[in-house]
Amino acid sequence: MSTATSTWNFGQVDAAFIAALREQLGERLVTSLAVREQHGRDESYHQGQAPDAVVYAKSTAEVAAVARLCAQRRVPIVAYGAGTSLEGQIAAVYGGVCINLSQMDKLLALHEADMDAVVEAGISREALNRQLRQSGLFFPVDPGANATLGGMAATRASGTNAVRYGTMRENVLALVVVLASGEVVRTGTRARKSAAGYDLTRLFVGSEGTLGIITELTVRLQGVPGMIAAAVVPFPSVAGAVQAVITIMQMSIPMSRIEFLDELQMQAINQYSHTDFACKPTLFMEFGGFDAAVAEQVAAVREICADHGAADFQWASDPAEREKLWEARHKAAYAAMAWRPGTRAWATDVCVPISRLAECIVGAREDAARAPFPTMVVGHVGDGNFHLPMLVDGDNPAEVEAAKILNAKVVHRALAMDGTCTGEHGIGLGKMDFLLAEHGPAAIAVMRSIKQALDPQGILNPGKMFAISQDRKGPP
Amino acid sequence: MSTATSTWNFGQVDAAFIAALREQLGERLVTSLAVREQHGRDESYHQGQAPDAVVYAKSTAEVAAVARLCAQRRVPIVAYGAGTSLEGQIAAVYGGVCINLSQMDKLLALHEADMDAVVEAGISREALNRQLRQSGLFFPVDPGANATLGGMAATRASGTNAVRYGTMRENVLALVVVLASGEVVRTGTRARKSAAGYDLTRLFVGSEGTLGIITELTVRLQGVPGMIAAAVVPFPSVAGAVQAVITIMQMSIPMSRIEFLDELQMQAINQYSHTDFACKPTLFMEFGGFDAAVAEQVAAVREICADHGAADFQWASDPAEREKLWEARHKAAYAAMAWRPGTRAWATDVCVPISRLAECIVGAREDAARAPFPTMVVGHVGDGNFHLPMLVDGDNPAEVEAAKILNAKVVHRALAMDGTCTGEHGIGLGKMDFLLAEHGPAAIAVMRSIKQALDPQGILNPGKMFAISQDRKGPP
Repeated sequence: MSTATSTWNFGQVDAAFIAALREQLGERLVTSLAVREQHGRDESYHQGQAPDAVVYAKSTAEVAAVARLCAQRRVPIVAYGAGTSLEGQIAAVYGGVCINLSQMDKLLALHEADMDAVVEAGISREALNRQLRQSGLFFPVDPGANATLGGMAATRASGTNAVRYGTMRENVLALVVVLASGEVVRTGTRARKSAAGYDLTRLFVGSEGTLGIITELTVRLQGVPGMIAAAVVPFPSVAGAVQAVITIMQMSIPMSRIEFLDELQMQAINQYSHTDFACKPTLFMEFGGFDAAVAEQVAAVREICADHGAADFQWASDPAEREKLWEARHKAAYAAMAWRPGTRAWATDVCVPISRLAECIVGAREDAARAPFPTMVVGHVGDGNFHLPMLVDGDNPAEVEAAKILNAKVVHRALAMDGTCTGEHGIGLGKMDFLLAEHGPAAIAVMRSIKQALDPQGILNPGKMFAISQDRKGPP
Repeated sequence: MSTATSTWNFGQVDAAFIAALREQLGERLVTSLAVREQHGRDESYHQGQAPDAVVYAKSTAEVAAVARLCAQRRVPIVAYGAGTSLEGQIAAVYGGVCINLSQMDKLLALHEADMDAVVEAGISREALNRQLRQSGLFFPVDPGANATLGGMAATRASGTNAVRYGTMRENVLALVVVLASGEVVRTGTRARKSAAGYDLTRLFVGSEGTLGIITELTVRLQGVPGMIAAAVVPFPSVAGAVQAVITIMQMSIPMSRIEFLDELQMQAINQYSHTDFACKPTLFMEFGGFDAAVAEQVAAVREICADHGAADFQWASDPAEREKLWEARHKAAYAAMAWRPGTRAWATDVCVPISRLAECIVGAREDAARAPFPTMVVGHVGDGNFHLPMLVDGDNPAEVEAAKILNAKVVHRALAMDGTCTGEHGIGLGKMDFLLAEHGPAAIAVMRSIKQALDPQGILNPGKMFAISQDRKGPP
């Protein structure tokens, strides 16, 4: 047991360590309580846990210097982008140093002919797309929040466009990563594909800051389609809507987005956005491409929807009208929270094979009907991914307990259907037990051996990904 | 140095070990020289190196049993699918046991609504697509050879369809892998996307049998397009053809295939296939989708090609005519070898950002013009990937030496253009030095630490991926 204790024994952020950091960062080292607390809490229901110090890095070299200092004294390091994570990924469970990367926000290179860009990790999704506007290109991964690209890569984010363009897994070509030792690694080139060695890019994508700190990304870009159309279609049942999606996918109709919202979510939207959508299970869709192709797609999808009981098919290609339709979807999260003011949404996030999706959603709704708080369903159904935002009063222990139980039920149903415990929010603090349930002990042992190989002191975002309770030797 | 020596000291395949294997495999253990030699040599220019024994596995459990035996005595293990690798991946450099997986060739499950399939690793690409025919679905990755799915995953294969559907990286959802210890790991679920933990699937894809033995795959399938058209278009110059491809990609025209062949390759095709194509730099293209979309795409591409100097645009949507056009492309490799009978093609394989592709091909052709053997260019240009088949007389040491030098020149030019030393053939024996040149020592150290963590005895496909000369401690 003495080994176990010493393994847990992280170095302290004492005056001498602060002085060493100050020498590197000057005024970009901050230790005020307000700033530290802000950096320990993300947008989720998880309790905040403040780091001991926050540094605002301006370069990969600075991140490496901080990592070397932390490595020397075994001080934990937590990387921070925009603080929009949803499973407590940025909470400083063991204190230590939070490295805020938001000042590393430059578009370093735009290669229009190659349709790729090199960016610093702290650039936000919206800032990148603003800077791309003149080029006719855009970065397609859109998780909703205005997250940083580094944070999105770290959590393997996706969102509404993933059905067409893929997730961060498919859209990152290469990374620059600072390792736990302070060494800097480049994981790939600008080639679109490569068979050269182990896929380190994909290993760091989704590693949630536990294997290295992403400081630079090379990402794929897409051309903005010449023609874009949007449609909103209410269905008589969840099953009808999902079955329509399955048929659309099987016919290889290249949808840009295909989103599902249930009747309560639609009601919340109507109340919040002063719209008058039918309060039924509804698909929001987007089509993009050349003119004739889009017209053909819209016609085919309209027919498929009608076959599955949808009598009404509202669509628009005019940009202003289209924006209006989609705005309602974009504000769904705020509409949900406004439905029960003062609550913080606890959004479950599972993903299943699409053939099981209707059953999975219906089952989740049945369980949710008995919960002491309202819930809604909103999902990226083309991928089989959905959320069940639970509008929980965080000050009411009975509600929090009920939410935990409901969350676990939804996840275990998804796992039983050969699905995953998280489609896009990641593991963080909230899904550690489910990670083991999903992958089993042998795969977790492989993951841990990789963690041990790359971060032998366990200083990178400790207490995340792998539940400490599962490991009697402590982190990693 | 004694440590180094002991590290190299693999266990012998002696009579006792053969007896232990025989107990597990019975008649499916073979030690005849002919069979062993056949299993040590792939389709490349590399010298064969025979294993000491070949076993034909019938299940994951058998592979695991063999791995446990090998682990106990530190005997090397080489996995074998169809033997179609192109960089000596299957050569048994240190002897040991070759596990032939070709009898594990079952389609275990077809999920039509989910558009995925679960297969054993030894199923061939063509056999899988034959069994899918009735479903209207197909598996899109097509490296040319009738490789096994396991081998294709192990080398991160791609080919002509990758421009639209991606490589094995994008098309494998999950794997079952036997580790060096004999433990069995499942790396994912059937969910289309997941943010749950480290991406073990992508780590094993492209690891060339050095981290584990893939025995089962869950792969994504695609719908066969309702309308398919093909086009063959000669250009006045390499630059014109490549510039046309760049424009096509920037306009987001969803090409199914877009292939480049240079004038000598076209001449070889005409001679081999008795065709009368113009002997000019030529694009072979395939379009797929709904009727109006395909018509629109063909019209747009025709205009782009004309803008880049292509006067002739031969196209066909009739299946027989289309097949005839593409058959010439499919036989390009045989046509090349027939151009200089008795030679074995040594196909270089690099991939660069597409903006540099014309320059890279032109440079390679200039270097090749001084070589004492003919060369041609054939490439998956939509991805920036091309091969320079060198028709080398393997019995002529001067030619072999010249081929080595030319190969290195082509690779180093690609690396200088921010490209990769291999787009799709992998590292194997042939690209080990270039792996270091491409990734640098820090990234190689990360790869090696992962290898060490997963295969501490170094028994999985030793002598591949990492050059032993780079590592004074010997394998891994």
